[in-house]
Amino acid sequence: MANTELDQLAINTIRLLAVDATFNSNSGHPGAPMGMAPVAHVLFNKFMRFNPQNPSWLNRDRFVLSNGHGCMLQYALLHLFGYKLSIQDLKDFRKIDSITPGHPEAHDTPGIEVTTGPLGQGVCNAVGLAMAQAHTAAIFNKPGFDLVNNYTYCFLGDGCLMEGVSGEASSLAGHLQLGNLICVYDDNHISIDGDINCAFTEDVAKRYEAYAWHVVTVGDGDNDLASIEAAIKECQAVKDKPSLIKLRTTIGYGSLQEGTHGVHGSPLKADDIAQVKKKFGFNPDESFAVPQKVYDLYGKHSSEGAAAEAEWNQLLAKYKESFPAEHADLVRRQAGELPQGWEKSLPTYTPADDAVATRKLSETVLTKIEAAIPELFGGSADLTGSNLTRWKDAVDFQPKSTGLGDYSGRYVRYGVREHAMGAILNGLAAYGTILPYSGTFLNFVSYAAGAVRLSALSRFRTIWVATHDSIGLGEDGPTHQPIETLAHFRALPNCMVWRPADGNETSAAYYVAITSTQTPSIVALSRQNLPQLEGCTIEKASKGAYVLQEVEGAKITLISTGSEVSICVDAAKELAEKHGLKARIVSIPCFEVFDAQSKEYRLSVLPDGIPILSVEVMSTMGWERYSHEQFGLNRFGASGAYKDVYKKFEFTPEGISKRAIATVDFWKDVPNIRSPLNRAFQQLI
Amino acid sequence: MANTELDQLAINTIRLLAVDATFNSNSGHPGAPMGMAPVAHVLFNKFMRFNPQNPSWLNRDRFVLSNGHGCMLQYALLHLFGYKLSIQDLKDFRKIDSITPGHPEAHDTPGIEVTTGPLGQGVCNAVGLAMAQAHTAAIFNKPGFDLVNNYTYCFLGDGCLMEGVSGEASSLAGHLQLGNLICVYDDNHISIDGDINCAFTEDVAKRYEAYAWHVVTVGDGDNDLASIEAAIKECQAVKDKPSLIKLRTTIGYGSLQEGTHGVHGSPLKADDIAQVKKKFGFNPDESFAVPQKVYDLYGKHSSEGAAAEAEWNQLLAKYKESFPAEHADLVRRQAGELPQGWEKSLPTYTPADDAVATRKLSETVLTKIEAAIPELFGGSADLTGSNLTRWKDAVDFQPKSTGLGDYSGRYVRYGVREHAMGAILNGLAAYGTILPYSGTFLNFVSYAAGAVRLSALSRFRTIWVATHDSIGLGEDGPTHQPIETLAHFRALPNCMVWRPADGNETSAAYYVAITSTQTPSIVALSRQNLPQLEGCTIEKASKGAYVLQEVEGAKITLISTGSEVSICVDAAKELAEKHGLKARIVSIPCFEVFDAQSKEYRLSVLPDGIPILSVEVMSTMGWERYSHEQFGLNRFGASGAYKDVYKKFEFTPEGISKRAIATVDFWKDVPNIRSPLNRAFQQLI
Repeated sequence: MANTELDQLAINTIRLLAVDATFNSNSGHPGAPMGMAPVAHVLFNKFMRFNPQNPSWLNRDRFVLSNGHGCMLQYALLHLFGYKLSIQDLKDFRKIDSITPGHPEAHDTPGIEVTTGPLGQGVCNAVGLAMAQAHTAAIFNKPGFDLVNNYTYCFLGDGCLMEGVSGEASSLAGHLQLGNLICVYDDNHISIDGDINCAFTEDVAKRYEAYAWHVVTVGDGDNDLASIEAAIKECQAVKDKPSLIKLRTTIGYGSLQEGTHGVHGSPLKADDIAQVKKKFGFNPDESFAVPQKVYDLYGKHSSEGAAAEAEWNQLLAKYKESFPAEHADLVRRQAGELPQGWEKSLPTYTPADDAVATRKLSETVLTKIEAAIPELFGGSADLTGSNLTRWKDAVDFQPKSTGLGDYSGRYVRYGVREHAMGAILNGLAAYGTILPYSGTFLNFVSYAAGAVRLSALSRFRTIWVATHDSIGLGEDGPTHQPIETLAHFRALPNCMVWRPADGNETSAAYYVAITSTQTPSIVALSRQNLPQLEGCTIEKASKGAYVLQEVEGAKITLISTGSEVSICVDAAKELAEKHGLKARIVSIPCFEVFDAQSKEYRLSVLPDGIPILSVEVMSTMGWERYSHEQFGLNRFGASGAYKDVYKKFEFTPEGISKRAIATVDFWKDVPNIRSPLNRAFQQLI
Repeated sequence: MANTELDQLAINTIRLLAVDATFNSNSGHPGAPMGMAPVAHVLFNKFMRFNPQNPSWLNRDRFVLSNGHGCMLQYALLHLFGYKLSIQDLKDFRKIDSITPGHPEAHDTPGIEVTTGPLGQGVCNAVGLAMAQAHTAAIFNKPGFDLVNNYTYCFLGDGCLMEGVSGEASSLAGHLQLGNLICVYDDNHISIDGDINCAFTEDVAKRYEAYAWHVVTVGDGDNDLASIEAAIKECQAVKDKPSLIKLRTTIGYGSLQEGTHGVHGSPLKADDIAQVKKKFGFNPDESFAVPQKVYDLYGKHSSEGAAAEAEWNQLLAKYKESFPAEHADLVRRQAGELPQGWEKSLPTYTPADDAVATRKLSETVLTKIEAAIPELFGGSADLTGSNLTRWKDAVDFQPKSTGLGDYSGRYVRYGVREHAMGAILNGLAAYGTILPYSGTFLNFVSYAAGAVRLSALSRFRTIWVATHDSIGLGEDGPTHQPIETLAHFRALPNCMVWRPADGNETSAAYYVAITSTQTPSIVALSRQNLPQLEGCTIEKASKGAYVLQEVEGAKITLISTGSEVSICVDAAKELAEKHGLKARIVSIPCFEVFDAQSKEYRLSVLPDGIPILSVEVMSTMGWERYSHEQFGLNRFGASGAYKDVYKKFEFTPEGISKRAIATVDFWKDVPNIRSPLNRAFQQLI
């Protein structure tokens, strides 16, 4: 590639849009866009296949800006190539309610695949996107129909590489031999604390070779477009390894402060902007200037992308003739629709059925529905036998050369890498043809908090099978027993936390998780066996909370989740028999779903007039929203046989009865006890 | 080292104690202890310097079992070498209230340095311990007084290496040239999902070389004691790099299931135990057998350790003569006492002082107290200029060869590695001479959730300077704006979450954090300026909550934290002036500390009789404990100038007033409004 004047003009246009937008908003990061504009130009204009008129075309190449703070680079590109992102949107950069927020967000901005900014996440999303491509190709491509063959490109910086989550995902990507993944490392030697010599002196290239990646170094990423182009070509040719291009660039190229952290996170000063515009041959009195030649250049590339999509659509039409079932499946998946009648596969239970651990009931659900939902794509962070996340005869998602499976497989061995797993789930969900779930212990979902947060913010449907959900795991002890975990994720917006009490509730949790296409779910499951409850149905549980046992003349409502619901049932018996006190019982497997019901329904479940006592073997935080008194565990647990642990902390029928009696006594003089669901005003949502 | 019969007997004794204890408790992990017994024997008996009679001797070598599930290895060693851990304690393994829980916990078991089990944490703790040694040596050692020169040894497995947190810490350890750190990688090819070929095929040795570690491989860790000994010696000789010994072992060595994951996490079957005892020359009818020769062998080594400590104490006595001030400082630090009168350095403010961001006020605190508290040892995860965690003229903790500082420096450039930073803090705190703090954005403390949890469980005093604490950070947007974070850590037992509202509250937060020697603290700090409040003092704020403004005839209490307190002050003015409604104002910078006050005091702050409205710009979860109505943000934030964001979500005097009026109206017909602090029964603690 000759470094033409037009190339240079386009590159400098990108740089100056980033300069102007950050100056205009008096906030943001000009340095990375100025440094990475050359590689972005080469990649987008020479290699990437996309159609700005249809950002959801299945076979488009995916682009992830893992160093998301450099998002003015991406916004500038999206604008210049003709996505629905105007100059005004660039002027509204970092302003309230714009589609150009401070870091890229997946749901509102056309052309943004995933939400990035929290460092290390994007490159893991890219691994997920690449896995999704490999799997979708393995399922749908046929001889003569190379339907799905896109690349996933990712830019990342020093910060992403320092974050351990990127190492986890990169090690897995190397193992999985994801040849369709090409990452560009912006090797600019600068992070917020200054020169990376102060903290980051490892040999990145060697580390990535150790992960079994293909590594190429380009020495002058500021000017040497030919080497950049050659490097990308070389990486495309490597089919059995992901690639890393280590690209030496100058952060803030062109600024008086280029090469320093002064240009990382603050707009350039006015005089600096004037000189850089002059240096680049632009009018220093103009802002947000785009030469028509640049629009034309990029518009031509976008037209080629549109043509490529049109050609692909013809291929798809032929595919429909030859493979009507596969075609229908692919189209359905892309539309985000579930197979008709899949829910009939969900198991139901009666009280006559055996007591079973909810983790085992979850395995039964997965086993029953996997054939009905072919996009279900699971895995575990090295706890398969404990999480029970793998249906019998599942094929592992593995490169064929391992002899352990192939890319058509739907079960991933994530290794002990919870955080990367969570971030990969987001990439898998973003691709558009997969419904991903994963397994670990509930306590270790916390390792992945950063990724779960982005599932919720990005509105991705991801499912966590989170077993060993309480002190009920017993002997492993306090290091493994969640106390704060449910409160944590219940406080996270747009995240469903389920804690089913039996088989029907487990089926309900999956039903709602799978049908909620804009929301991630964490399903907390017991290690220990739980009885099938009288009064529970999938339908009732799907409302988030319901009356399990109604009693005439009740003096108290017991509200509980998971393994404690059946203990509440026993406590209610004891209260009636030994104390002549009638208790009604409410099961609330999911706060978030219950909160979304009508007030009328909610008040029928938790009515005025009698006090409500909550029972859950972990932090009481948040339970005050549904109850007058709370029985929980605001301390760490203990190592021992689970029945001993429950007894130590009095989570027994006796322990609950004692507190129920205290509750009734304490509230007996209060007239017209008001349900805590009655509120003075609505919350903002 | 010849592989004598006695060596073999000792090794097999360790193995069989692990076999018997896991069988006896019907729970636990025999595989790793059986595989690592040889290297443990060589390390503990040939290299490690310790005195079981005084597990807190400063210059002891530190040992960390990062693969904490193998803790029967460690418990067996502690018993055999004469720590206060009896055969009965081994029989009580994994039983309730024992000192031998399912994973090692630092606070109750003599000889356990740090709490491990959650994978990846221990090796980071070891990095922290090694940093602490290097720093303590740099401060206290003098010519002729090599007072502090211990090694830190760490065992870790495949799981630890797959976790990204270990990569973060290892990269930093290589950068820091920690020659006193020697890690042994139990290369047994097995994790819970089976052979690591299914997920973990990277070249670990090469990766660690890329981190600038010294790497040695030992091919037969089951039998080749001479090579193990030579490897450790070699690593000790390398002074400018941490070392990794890649040790090939057989998991469950001796069992019929050796070399498979069948022996990882379940006790051996009775017949297998019988055959392995026979194979090792033990009586199959005996359990928990320890040949006297083994006690004698290890007892001799422990006596040598006791003698070494006695000699060291003589050196310390001489040191006292030559360096009385340093000696006093060292003794004081080890005793966990603070320098007398340090608190006089805490800044105080009056309402006449300028409005300042609490992150800046935090910088002032650190600047004022750093000279008074020489053990204060800070850092940031590459956000120094944003967190304001570095006092002017601080020296960086760096190897001299970098030219950027030296080991006497008290400021660490952690890089973008929040999780490792958190786990390293635990190691720093465990060493006994350091009071560690660290900085990042509040939102990214979540990346370190796994480590913060272990600070709390281990009762380590660590401090997080968590700036940019809300939507008040503005333009960076929802990816960086915490919503669930305070609820998460407020729900974590033994963790203080502070959110100061002004300068005096910031000083109070530091005062309580520094004087609470058994509890970690997270101090949430604003990016934006906040006024100095009328009615606030360090003393009042140190109670966790207090009445900021008392008003005769108040109809409502407004309770708030941090940046919203001053908005509540303005709202109270507006309510009085425009609506004739009097509001009292409570500031509650720390829930946990307020909860620990007397009920009388608490009820004086939040009395019966009038409704209470809470105001905080994040999840309302948990606020029901202190208020009748809650104004918060149960959704994600927005990118924009912070005043626009506050306005969008109505966190303005008008928005608060509106809700206060609704609250008063809603509660006006309720007679004898009860403070939510009145409860039917006490929580278990």
